[in-house]
Amino acid sequence: MSTISHPLPLGFRWSSVKAGIKASGKPDVALAVCDGGASAAAMFTSNQVVAAPVTVGRRHLVTTGGRVSAVLVNAGNANCATGEPGIDACRKSCIAVAEQFGCVFDEIFPSSTGIIGVPLPVEKLIAAVPAAKALLGDTPEHAEAFATAILTTDTKLKVAHASFEIEDRTVNLFGCAKGAGMIGPQLVPHATMLVYLFTDLAANSEHLAAMLTPAVEGSFNSISIDGDMSTNDTVLLLASGKSEVEAKGEAVPAFEAALRSVCDSLAHAIVDDGEGVTHVVTLEITGARSNAEAQQIARTIATSPLCKTAWSSADPNWGRLLAAAGRAGVAFDPATVTVTIGGLPVFAHGTRDAAFDEDATHAAMSNREYTIHLDLGQAEGKSKFITCDLTHEYVSINADYST
Amino acid sequence: MSTISHPLPLGFRWSSVKAGIKASGKPDVALAVCDGGASAAAMFTSNQVVAAPVTVGRRHLVTTGGRVSAVLVNAGNANCATGEPGIDACRKSCIAVAEQFGCVFDEIFPSSTGIIGVPLPVEKLIAAVPAAKALLGDTPEHAEAFATAILTTDTKLKVAHASFEIEDRTVNLFGCAKGAGMIGPQLVPHATMLVYLFTDLAANSEHLAAMLTPAVEGSFNSISIDGDMSTNDTVLLLASGKSEVEAKGEAVPAFEAALRSVCDSLAHAIVDDGEGVTHVVTLEITGARSNAEAQQIARTIATSPLCKTAWSSADPNWGRLLAAAGRAGVAFDPATVTVTIGGLPVFAHGTRDAAFDEDATHAAMSNREYTIHLDLGQAEGKSKFITCDLTHEYVSINADYST
Repeated sequence: MSTISHPLPLGFRWSSVKAGIKASGKPDVALAVCDGGASAAAMFTSNQVVAAPVTVGRRHLVTTGGRVSAVLVNAGNANCATGEPGIDACRKSCIAVAEQFGCVFDEIFPSSTGIIGVPLPVEKLIAAVPAAKALLGDTPEHAEAFATAILTTDTKLKVAHASFEIEDRTVNLFGCAKGAGMIGPQLVPHATMLVYLFTDLAANSEHLAAMLTPAVEGSFNSISIDGDMSTNDTVLLLASGKSEVEAKGEAVPAFEAALRSVCDSLAHAIVDDGEGVTHVVTLEITGARSNAEAQQIARTIATSPLCKTAWSSADPNWGRLLAAAGRAGVAFDPATVTVTIGGLPVFAHGTRDAAFDEDATHAAMSNREYTIHLDLGQAEGKSKFITCDLTHEYVSINADYST
Repeated sequence: MSTISHPLPLGFRWSSVKAGIKASGKPDVALAVCDGGASAAAMFTSNQVVAAPVTVGRRHLVTTGGRVSAVLVNAGNANCATGEPGIDACRKSCIAVAEQFGCVFDEIFPSSTGIIGVPLPVEKLIAAVPAAKALLGDTPEHAEAFATAILTTDTKLKVAHASFEIEDRTVNLFGCAKGAGMIGPQLVPHATMLVYLFTDLAANSEHLAAMLTPAVEGSFNSISIDGDMSTNDTVLLLASGKSEVEAKGEAVPAFEAALRSVCDSLAHAIVDDGEGVTHVVTLEITGARSNAEAQQIARTIATSPLCKTAWSSADPNWGRLLAAAGRAGVAFDPATVTVTIGGLPVFAHGTRDAAFDEDATHAAMSNREYTIHLDLGQAEGKSKFITCDLTHEYVSINADYST
């Protein structure tokens, strides 16, 4: 039985196998195939250091004009900072998949996630391809196998679904994601968070890209676990067209809403399963001079070790919020700032709110999820940003090393 | 017996008392007096949210043209985000000191450090002033009492000394500092790190400011513990003139060197005593297009949770260094980057250095102190930046809260 209970988009098949790349011995190669090819749009990390599959995947989308027949993902090795041999290894793995499916190799979209700087054991990856092909299928169990094999330090499966109907035809959108650390994405069109979105809508690559950008901006680009932007972040949207619903008329806003819903759900799931996370905090910054300035303040609070450690113990030490906002590089006057935590008054008119109740605020912060609202009192700029606390468990996960 | 064994600058007296502001009951009010007044220059935090004593101290230096008769410091309360009442409280404490010494109140320089957002118990501070006056003295024990009372989460006394001779006359420079958390200073002329520098050189305020700025840029502005810039950071340089050596001729470079030496020593001591620190890491970034870009990369690595947690276990996971550098907002080509750790080869020509030795690198990183050198291969821009690891102890210190 699969945990996926919703219908899947038509036109896709999924599988996973154990190739021995993950030290744990768990499934580590995932394959998704769209017979006949899908229209594709992708967004990638804006890091100056990018993994080989990001370089190759970006190039493939350009040469094919946004056409993908299969997605090959390995976990356990990022194939990053591996030089030209890394590019060669990635290309060889694409060729191996193309040979199995009789398509051109640049219709294969590669992804890798795991440790940086270690040569990819490409022979293991290539050897796994025939078995992965043999296991392909379109059931919820198959989709779950794909979504599971891409995980690394994640503790939970991250999947989301949305659908809508147009003239008795149903369009399905299925998304899956991995990522629990090195999460501070800032994806640009052309983000080790990996997100795959599969739909049976009929749309061309350009239109998919135009719809993907705003959905990513408000979701994956508005979350942070540790603020460390990865070298491998990738969001890939594939459209098989098999619903026979075209992306025009009322199908466009319906799909945009479905896309936003699935991206929001997966982005939240990534933070909720973040390394060592015990509290998920939504930062609502309003009253800024621009949305960009609001996000800059949100991102600074979200990456402040003092704010994040205070959240871990539900400590209403709100002065740390103000100190972090004040170093964000955004000009403001503390006298016009208002802060509430979980809806409770904290700071107003340049000083502690007269109604501040330390015990009540501590109780609100003891919930797993709550919202911190900071209004700058300047203008209409705003940002909604989802982040988390910094705990002993985060340190343990990321400091775990023995010779 | 004092741990301070060097001669102190002439013209200053110091003391400390317990005023009951620190919850621990330890000495929490420090007083330094320069009879007849000292020339002064200061640098403060560039945070948008600043504590009342920063606002008041800045104003006092302007109105007096850079003249300070006494420095009043309290630990245990930052007097920040306390609105107009906080400004009033600060001003009242200055008046109380001025009355004791028969000087104008704007010749009193105030400082506070501790929790943000809690009203300063100014009546305790004022009540402590007469006792602080009665205990003033110019011995090493007195200077140590001052340097001890300003500490908060610090575990060690932080003092430094330098001296030089000009025509049989000796100029002494004594500095003390506090700070272990919320350390990511970016001080601007006119930085909860507090630094007090006392000298008996004869120099006017403008000349002191001109000499202080480059010394601070290369020291306190080039360190980070948690990257959280404080609302109270202050560096104050006082010159009594009592050495009868004027700041001209060969005395200028001699004093500049002494000042740089004391600032470097205190900046290192702050990181070495940083909250939970087990490794002190010097980042040498070279080959950048500008010093500013080099420092931007250094600061991004220094505040990367993934780099800092890896350092805590001496984990040679150097890919995290590259990933952090790559998100610093500085354009570079990984193919021209070279990385060494403790002098050992790690990364070159776009990939892991052929001579990379994981065990040797782990051994080098097991030292309490070592240097990571990253050369961008672009131009001559460089930065030397001192930072530290992120440990369980840091989380414990900053998450410690109970209702």
